[in-house]
Amino acid sequence: MASQYDVIVVGSGPGGYVAAIRASQLGLKTAVIERESLGGICLNWGCIPTKALLKSAQVFEYIKHSADYGITISGESKADFGAVIKRSRGVAESMSKGVQFLMKKNKIDVISGFGKVKSGKKVEVKAADGTVTTYDAKHIIIATGSRARQLPNVPIDGNKVIEYRKAMSLEKRPDSLLVIGSGAIGVEFAYVYASMGTKVTIVEFLPNVVPIEDEDISKELAKQYKKLGIDIYTKSEVTKVDTSGNGCKVFVKTPDGEKTFDVDIVLSAAGIVANIENIGLEELGISVDRGKIVTDDYYRTNVEGFYAIGDVTKGQALAHVASAEAIICVEKIAGLSHVEPLNYNNIPGCTYCTPEIASVGYTEKAAREAGYELKVGKFPFSASGKAKAGGVPEGFVKVIFDAKYGEFLGAHFIGSNVTEMIAEVVTARKLETTGEEILKAVHPHPTMSEAIKDATEAAYGEAIHL
Amino acid sequence: MASQYDVIVVGSGPGGYVAAIRASQLGLKTAVIERESLGGICLNWGCIPTKALLKSAQVFEYIKHSADYGITISGESKADFGAVIKRSRGVAESMSKGVQFLMKKNKIDVISGFGKVKSGKKVEVKAADGTVTTYDAKHIIIATGSRARQLPNVPIDGNKVIEYRKAMSLEKRPDSLLVIGSGAIGVEFAYVYASMGTKVTIVEFLPNVVPIEDEDISKELAKQYKKLGIDIYTKSEVTKVDTSGNGCKVFVKTPDGEKTFDVDIVLSAAGIVANIENIGLEELGISVDRGKIVTDDYYRTNVEGFYAIGDVTKGQALAHVASAEAIICVEKIAGLSHVEPLNYNNIPGCTYCTPEIASVGYTEKAAREAGYELKVGKFPFSASGKAKAGGVPEGFVKVIFDAKYGEFLGAHFIGSNVTEMIAEVVTARKLETTGEEILKAVHPHPTMSEAIKDATEAAYGEAIHL
Repeated sequence: MASQYDVIVVGSGPGGYVAAIRASQLGLKTAVIERESLGGICLNWGCIPTKALLKSAQVFEYIKHSADYGITISGESKADFGAVIKRSRGVAESMSKGVQFLMKKNKIDVISGFGKVKSGKKVEVKAADGTVTTYDAKHIIIATGSRARQLPNVPIDGNKVIEYRKAMSLEKRPDSLLVIGSGAIGVEFAYVYASMGTKVTIVEFLPNVVPIEDEDISKELAKQYKKLGIDIYTKSEVTKVDTSGNGCKVFVKTPDGEKTFDVDIVLSAAGIVANIENIGLEELGISVDRGKIVTDDYYRTNVEGFYAIGDVTKGQALAHVASAEAIICVEKIAGLSHVEPLNYNNIPGCTYCTPEIASVGYTEKAAREAGYELKVGKFPFSASGKAKAGGVPEGFVKVIFDAKYGEFLGAHFIGSNVTEMIAEVVTARKLETTGEEILKAVHPHPTMSEAIKDATEAAYGEAIHL
Repeated sequence: MASQYDVIVVGSGPGGYVAAIRASQLGLKTAVIERESLGGICLNWGCIPTKALLKSAQVFEYIKHSADYGITISGESKADFGAVIKRSRGVAESMSKGVQFLMKKNKIDVISGFGKVKSGKKVEVKAADGTVTTYDAKHIIIATGSRARQLPNVPIDGNKVIEYRKAMSLEKRPDSLLVIGSGAIGVEFAYVYASMGTKVTIVEFLPNVVPIEDEDISKELAKQYKKLGIDIYTKSEVTKVDTSGNGCKVFVKTPDGEKTFDVDIVLSAAGIVANIENIGLEELGISVDRGKIVTDDYYRTNVEGFYAIGDVTKGQALAHVASAEAIICVEKIAGLSHVEPLNYNNIPGCTYCTPEIASVGYTEKAAREAGYELKVGKFPFSASGKAKAGGVPEGFVKVIFDAKYGEFLGAHFIGSNVTEMIAEVVTARKLETTGEEILKAVHPHPTMSEAIKDATEAAYGEAIHL
C-alpha cells in the first residue's frame, strides 16, 4: 500500500515549516503537524514578538533622548505597556498567518494536534477534541522544538515566577523584575523592561553575562547595562523564591554572601530543554543522548525513515540552525546531489538587546585553546563617523585571524545594529576569506560595517583610524 | 639635496588623510596640505554631517509615529531646526578633530594653505595671510576633491539658491524647498527637510530619481517619497529661477509643459566637478580628460612623481573609493608587493534617505546589455519578520546572478538600514561567491540580512518565504 505522504513533519517552527515547504517544492507530498500555532515558538513566542518589544523599547529610548537629536517634546512621553504588548502579539499573529498562507500555497496539509511517532513510519495525531488519527509517510521529520528549562529550586507558577512566554504577555508592567540567567532571552527582556522603567536585576551563575560570548563582549554589555541602571550579580545563584507575600522574596547566593531581593516578578531564563517526551521515541527505539535526539550529518536518526532537526538535536538551539538543517535534511531525502553537511562553527548568534551583540566562530579564548596563533583587532564605534553621527558610539568590533594563514577565525560585535553586520563575516568564512581579502573589499562610507575593515586593519597592524 | 618629504599630499579629505596616514605607517616622511578643515568635504560638509541630520530626521519620524510602537506622547513634539543643525556641525567638528589627532599621532606635518604643484616635485603653498612657501617631496599626491556643479541657468547665490554646504547650515528651516537633481545628495536633503515639515519638490532631468540605481529601486523610492508628500518631476528641467521677489519663482520644463513653483529655497544638487583649477596642472603638463586627472591603475599621472586620487580622478566620486585609492597609491609608492588595482565594478553605493538605498555591481539593465543571461531574485521586506517587528516593511532586496556560472553580478537594496547590509555582497563578490554559496552561508534569524538569502533563493527558484 502506498504511503499517504512522502514527508510528514512533526512541528511547524522554523525547522518544521521550512522542511515542509522545501519538501513540497521538491515534489514531495507533505503534511505538517502542529499542536498550537503555525510558526512554532520562534514566530509566536520567540524571535519575532521579542523583536517587536525591543523595537518599542528602542523607540522609547529615542524619545527619552530626543533632545540629543535636536527634537523637543513639550509634554510627557510614556510607554503604554498594554499597547506595546498588543503590537508585539499582532506582529506574531500576522507572521503566523503568513506561514498559514505559505502552507496553502505550497499545498501542504496542516494537521492540528499532538503528534507521536509510531513504528511502520506512522504518526499518531491526537487532536484538541481527543480524536486520534494515524498518518503514514515515507519520511518522518521530528521538529518538535524546545521549551524553557525549569530550575529545580525555582518552580514556575506562571504568575509571579514566569518564563519567556508570560514575560511577553504580562498585563501590567512590573515595577521590579529579577531575571535568572543572562543568555539572549534573559538580557533581551532585561533591556525591554528596564527601558520602560522597571527596576531590573540579573542573576547569572557563570562569571560573565552572555556567557557564551567572547569575554570582551560580556564585559562591555555589563558596563552598558550598569549605565542603564540594571543590577548584575554574576557567579550567583537563586536558591529560593518565596512567593507567599505580595511579591517575590528572592534569595541569592553571591560571592559576597547571601542577598535577598524583593521584586514583583521573577523571570526564569535559564536555557531550554528539548521537547522529546511523549512523542514515541522510546517505543520506536530512537536514540537520545543528553536530552537530544541523535542524528547523522543529514539528520537521520538510528531508525530508518525517521529524522530530527532543530532544537531537539544537538546543534545550537537557534531558528536559523533549524531552518538550515531542514533544507539539508529534505534535500538529502529528495536525493539532491549538492547537499553538504552544515558547518556548526559558522553559525552566527545574535542578541537584540541594546547595544546589540552578534558573533560567529571562535572566541579569542577558544581560538587560543585550540592552539592557534592569533592576530586580533578591535575597533571601537567611538571612532566611527557613522556611529557618531547616529549618536550610537557604544561598543566595538573584534576580529580574530589565524596569524599563519590569515583564516578568519571569529568575529564578535557589540553595538547598534550589529546583528545586521555579522552576515558579512558568515559569508566571508564560508568562502574561507583571509584578512587581506577583507581589506580589499571596499566597505561603503559612512557605515558601521566599515568597522569590520577597520578592526581587520588593526589586526594586521595597519589601522588608519586608530 | 634630499627632499624635505617622501610624500606630500595636497588635500586632507578621505583620500588625502588616509594616504598620509598609510604613508607615515610605511615609514615615509609625510606632509598634508589643507586649505580649510582637516577631513575635507566628507567629514566637514558631506558624508558625516548629513548622516547626523538624517538621524535627527529619523528620530523625529519615530516620534511622529510613536503611537505605532505603543508609546504615547501627551504634548507636542517639534524638530528644533537650530538644534538639529548645531548637532550636525558638532559631529563634523569632532570628526575633524579626530583627523587632527591622527595626523599628530602619525607624525604627519599639517600645512595650512592652498597648494599648487610645481615642477621639480614641489608644492607651493599660499597661506591665509598670503605668505607663500615651497615644499618638495619625492612623491606628490593630488587629492583636492570636488565641489558642487553649477548649472549655467541656475546661478548659486548662497542665499536663496544654494548648494549642499549651505543646505546643511541654514539658520531657518524653509517652508518650501525645490531640489534640482535626485542623486544621493538631492534625495537625502529632500528627506531631511520633508520629514521636518518643509514642502519639498524634486526636479530630475532623467527619467528616474536616483538615476544611477536599478530601475526597480528608483520606482520604489519615488513611491515612498510620494507617500511622504514629496512632489517629483522627472524628465524635467529648471530653466530659470527668479529671485527678485520674496522667495524664488522657479520655471520648470516638464513633459506636461512649463510649470512654475514658488518656493523659499532652491537647492542645486546636480552633481559635482573636480577641483583641478589653479593647482598647477597646466604648467606641469599633467594630463586631464573630461575634467578629471588621468592616471594609471596605481594613480600615477603622466608626470613622474605626481599622483592623483579621489574625486579628481575618474572613479566614482565617493569617500570609500578615495580611501581605497589612497591605500593602493601609497602602498605602490612604498614598493609593497601585494598591491592590486581596484575593481571599480565592486564599489558599493549608499544613499541614506528613508528608505535607504544600497547597491553594488550591475543593474539588471546593465547586466542584460552586457550580454549575460540572468537569474534575478527579489524579496520584499514585507515578508521579513524582522522588518515587520521593526515596523519597517517598506522596500526589498534584489539580487542578480549570471545564469550560467552563478556569478553574483549585482545587488540592489532599498529599505531600512540596507546600507549596513551591502558590505556582505561586496565581500562575496570580492571572493567570487556564487548564489549557491550565499544559500549555504547561514544568515542569522531574525535579521533584515536574511533577505539577501531569501532573494537568492528566489533567483534560484527555491524561495521558502514567498
